[in-house]
Amino acid sequence: MMGLEKALRQVQQRLDSIPLTAAMQLEPLVLSERDLSLCAPIEPNVNDKGTGFGGALASVATLAGWALVSVLAERVEPGAFEVVVHKSNLEYQKPVRSSFTAKVGLPEESELDSFEQKLKERGKAALNLMVHLIADDGIAMLLTGRFVAYRSQ
Amino acid sequence: MMGLEKALRQVQQRLDSIPLTAAMQLEPLVLSERDLSLCAPIEPNVNDKGTGFGGALASVATLAGWALVSVLAERVEPGAFEVVVHKSNLEYQKPVRSSFTAKVGLPEESELDSFEQKLKERGKAALNLMVHLIADDGIAMLLTGRFVAYRSQ
Repeated sequence: MMGLEKALRQVQQRLDSIPLTAAMQLEPLVLSERDLSLCAPIEPNVNDKGTGFGGALASVATLAGWALVSVLAERVEPGAFEVVVHKSNLEYQKPVRSSFTAKVGLPEESELDSFEQKLKERGKAALNLMVHLIADDGIAMLLTGRFVAYRSQ
Repeated sequence: MMGLEKALRQVQQRLDSIPLTAAMQLEPLVLSERDLSLCAPIEPNVNDKGTGFGGALASVATLAGWALVSVLAERVEPGAFEVVVHKSNLEYQKPVRSSFTAKVGLPEESELDSFEQKLKERGKAALNLMVHLIADDGIAMLLTGRFVAYRSQ
């Protein structure tokens, strides 16, 4: 199976091809053994009140979930799968006044095994993820979402 | 009470002050007797697959709900209230391949009366809205969200 780092580079290229990610001035994806993070500055992502624009927070959190599932699918078979968000639930908990980071934990090993197995056998598999949007040392928004990977070629 | 058209112009100004709305190339808000619409072209709002980027769809749908509640609050007392999205639920139903429009219906008269009454008396009121994201003659995404208006001055 492809290494995580190589898979991450592929997914970073896909992410960079989305026009709005440039407007949001996203930093590069960061992957650790435990989670994936995606950070954005506040300036290009403010609303009319000068705090974090809900649409930008939703975008960054959704992209973090999408990126993690994309990395996991890329490892199974490079370039073979696409990933989309199917549904999501957003809870905005407090205003964002600084740069912010969406953080999503890697699935447990049993869940990951099942995801990879299904993807290989059926060409389609989903993961339910919780993404924390962190700013000013606290949770500003929570996204729970269902992301689907499917064979595209 | 302020007219809807004048309130709409105020809200359009606020919307135009959000940096990402320029990147998304949003068209001006359109208000009818029945609903409020917000339209966006596809080109600046695509994902890595060349279809509508989930974050952009979420942003436009959220802005439509925010704009409607902002217009309704503005009518009660110009410049007195701010509006935020509190939570939302998104269901992505099909890929978007053309320009898309978020459409949100005006609340029923009884609900609107209660919203205005609470806003005047308590300085805070919420509306639960359903926003349809329409593209290619069909519903591409559904957002149900809770939007809160509160006295800011």
